[in-house]
Amino acid sequence: MSKIRIGIAGYGNLGKGVELAVRQNDDMELAGVFTRRAPETVKLMTEGVPVYHMDSVKDMQDKIDVMIICGGSATDLPEQTPALAKYFNVIDSFDTHARIPEHFHNVDKACKESGHAAIISLGWDPGLFSLNRLYAESILPNGKTYTFWGKGVSQGHSDAIRRVEGVKKGIQYTVPVDAAMDAVRSGSQPELSTREKHKRVCYVVAEDGADKAKITDTIKNLKNYFDEYDTTVNFISDEEFDAEHNTMPHGGFVMRSGMTGEGEKTHQMIEYSLKLESNPEFTASVLIAYARALYRLKNEGAEGCMTAFDIAPAYLSRLSGEELRATML
Amino acid sequence: MSKIRIGIAGYGNLGKGVELAVRQNDDMELAGVFTRRAPETVKLMTEGVPVYHMDSVKDMQDKIDVMIICGGSATDLPEQTPALAKYFNVIDSFDTHARIPEHFHNVDKACKESGHAAIISLGWDPGLFSLNRLYAESILPNGKTYTFWGKGVSQGHSDAIRRVEGVKKGIQYTVPVDAAMDAVRSGSQPELSTREKHKRVCYVVAEDGADKAKITDTIKNLKNYFDEYDTTVNFISDEEFDAEHNTMPHGGFVMRSGMTGEGEKTHQMIEYSLKLESNPEFTASVLIAYARALYRLKNEGAEGCMTAFDIAPAYLSRLSGEELRATML
Repeated sequence: MSKIRIGIAGYGNLGKGVELAVRQNDDMELAGVFTRRAPETVKLMTEGVPVYHMDSVKDMQDKIDVMIICGGSATDLPEQTPALAKYFNVIDSFDTHARIPEHFHNVDKACKESGHAAIISLGWDPGLFSLNRLYAESILPNGKTYTFWGKGVSQGHSDAIRRVEGVKKGIQYTVPVDAAMDAVRSGSQPELSTREKHKRVCYVVAEDGADKAKITDTIKNLKNYFDEYDTTVNFISDEEFDAEHNTMPHGGFVMRSGMTGEGEKTHQMIEYSLKLESNPEFTASVLIAYARALYRLKNEGAEGCMTAFDIAPAYLSRLSGEELRATML
Repeated sequence: MSKIRIGIAGYGNLGKGVELAVRQNDDMELAGVFTRRAPETVKLMTEGVPVYHMDSVKDMQDKIDVMIICGGSATDLPEQTPALAKYFNVIDSFDTHARIPEHFHNVDKACKESGHAAIISLGWDPGLFSLNRLYAESILPNGKTYTFWGKGVSQGHSDAIRRVEGVKKGIQYTVPVDAAMDAVRSGSQPELSTREKHKRVCYVVAEDGADKAKITDTIKNLKNYFDEYDTTVNFISDEEFDAEHNTMPHGGFVMRSGMTGEGEKTHQMIEYSLKLESNPEFTASVLIAYARALYRLKNEGAEGCMTAFDIAPAYLSRLSGEELRATML
């Protein structure tokens, strides 16, 4: 059986994660990596896989079954996903929740003009967390859903710290508040704002002679980032920073507290959680599983844009329906 | 818009749960309940819903969109689901894991002969737990999956206790072992047998003058039920039994511990858990959500037998694709 030929567009942390995830799935092969940099400057981890400039992407239409687009959501994906859907079946991890309907529309239009299929907004949130919200709310219509993020690194907040005067290195962890999670699990269905559910913990290496009290004060009052949260700033050494804060862990919880039965007095609790040592590697693993689904759906005649909501779970697995029923049901 | 007309075949705890779950979904209505008892002896909780004898079921073909079969897996469902698939689109909660392939085959055959559609083996295990095993194993191919059950009442083990001489009332809770769950969460991927993962806690009301030491000894040594587990037997009063042990809680955990990245050294942990105050009411809620999916799929031309693996999640929700993308993704 021929392997599913995967292309990667954009070779940052996520693209590297996809490269490594392909190795774990021997029904797939990495057919090529596309970059906006000079191709000869990009060194892959896999021997024998060609690197192309993004400008030559259309010459590769017959060589790639599914193109996984690994750009950022702010400016890359809104352009790249519809553009590449002209030539390929595409997968992306577009995660600006408020703009998903618009992005869906643009990708769907491009797909329908070219006869391709796409699955957008994959990963864990949006993605697996969204699926869990949907399953749980469909099963328990009378209830409340809560999403907690962390413990994990927020790239945007870490960037904000690093822009503060006197900060040499900085990283921010979003941490769910235990008391808030316990309140949800109790079945009391509390009203909780995002800030009541999370606190922010920062680790900073200060420049020599910098005023640490001033750095702390500036960070804690950064508008839209920290001012409305319970924020802790810890100063550490350069060595500790490099040793302890060099990975991108993340995770979180989706909880649904619902009521059933006569008078709706019976409490039913559904909880889903992820504890990820590497956010980009895990996101890449989700993209790869859905690349398999997209390949199969395309072979069955699918066209247009889809999301995880539209994909029957069996399409993600290498096992046949018969094998799945016998071993996993 | 006309409502989805639900039929219930079998009016025990699960059937009652389905009756109550229909009330929580106003796109549905309960069209009738079918029983093997004398219909006039069955009193529903809902006014104005007719009760019919199971023998007259075929006269109701045009009155019911989805028949939810609420019998037991040991003897009822293997007969009833294929038989009723001759006349209806059917849903069941068949949960004898080892016999699912055979049951699937029988229901599929009946559906294809009659032009109906079915979804079998729904609930939480098989059902939601199966879905979580499938998603997690597809996303993290290098890893191990663990299922823990409890804390919850096991009907079979409670029945076994009640057959012991000197036992007036008895109930058994399956309880997951914390140390085993912690070992899984650590990422060490331990080998754990079912008995290493669970302990069994029994509450017994003894007959007057019964030999409690002998009861304890007999229970702990019951072959295939308790002999291979860490079992605790607690004697309590009639009053305490009736007050504290009159519900059917259950739940459990599905965990996937997987490795990603270069050299597969990055630990990624997925965990799903349920904490249910009523097992039959929750199972009923799952059946009802999938009844909606079955109704829609049938309208799109589906035929034959399916499982939760084959159903795209969007079919479970009352919301449109557009609404789902805007609010839940």
